[in-house]
Amino acid sequence: MKLETGKQGTSPEMEEYDDEDDDEVIDKSCYSPPMIFGPPREGGEDLFVPPLNFAMVDNGVFRSGFPDVANFSFLQTLKLRSVLCLCPEPYPEANWEFLRSNGIRLFQFGIEGGKHRTGCLVGCLRKLQRWCLTSVFDEYQRFAAAKTRVSDQRFMEVFDISSLKHLPMSFSCSRIA
Amino acid sequence: MKLETGKQGTSPEMEEYDDEDDDEVIDKSCYSPPMIFGPPREGGEDLFVPPLNFAMVDNGVFRSGFPDVANFSFLQTLKLRSVLCLCPEPYPEANWEFLRSNGIRLFQFGIEGGKHRTGCLVGCLRKLQRWCLTSVFDEYQRFAAAKTRVSDQRFMEVFDISSLKHLPMSFSCSRIA
Repeated sequence: MKLETGKQGTSPEMEEYDDEDDDEVIDKSCYSPPMIFGPPREGGEDLFVPPLNFAMVDNGVFRSGFPDVANFSFLQTLKLRSVLCLCPEPYPEANWEFLRSNGIRLFQFGIEGGKHRTGCLVGCLRKLQRWCLTSVFDEYQRFAAAKTRVSDQRFMEVFDISSLKHLPMSFSCSRIA
Repeated sequence: MKLETGKQGTSPEMEEYDDEDDDEVIDKSCYSPPMIFGPPREGGEDLFVPPLNFAMVDNGVFRSGFPDVANFSFLQTLKLRSVLCLCPEPYPEANWEFLRSNGIRLFQFGIEGGKHRTGCLVGCLRKLQRWCLTSVFDEYQRFAAAKTRVSDQRFMEVFDISSLKHLPMSFSCSRIA
């Protein structure tokens, strides 16, 4: 899953986006583009708006729902170098511009009809990291919530890591070096 | 929240434990002590059993439910230096022994009656990191699930960071140096 090697002092190697329709449970007012309403403020300071379902997957690897303009100032703090987009839809122009102006490379692997593509991908990574299925599913369900699917869990269960065993892939052992 | 500074090449600075009673939704067979049933195996290799609700909070900072013997081999891979326990109950002897034999320091701040103490603590950290409340609650609810409490969310909402603004606390900017 690591697409590039980072350099000392900079941060992540990849970010995973997913347009899981969890979006609908989010307070959109918080996600309004800053040029219209401005980002949320407290004590006279702007607050960060991480994207829905944002989390750290491992050193330098993050996951989240599909970001919008309100999230860009937060994403900038991550010093991303690559973004992996799993949606088949055309990548929005505003997001393109954000990537371009921050020197971030986009890798888009559009997967049709998926709902928890990022969750499945992270689950496969956890198998490479030798997590038991109970823990893989615990994490998957935390992000998929009411939209947990048996078919996704079967996909992760049968995902065969035997051909990938030559990859050194321990949790938290991928150093930013 | 950082209790010590790490040294190059080793990993986390702190781990947060919480005995959130989410434990009851876990397949206990996977959590059986390895000396009785052995850890889960696949392809002749032992699998890791991360504790319930395990996640990476930030560089070198992790959270989880209260771990048991089945989780020790996974926890060993994290090269922890400190554990922060938020439960008031006496720390179990087996866990003590694990910490002792791995040179991990225990910091116990027993908080009576709490259910999502770790979630509240992480929420307060996110406020220090200038996350908007929508994102703080999104993360809190992901871990608290059906046990989400309005009182916890109010605690995080009114948590006053104004006296802590001298602390440099940006997400993902705490380098392991």
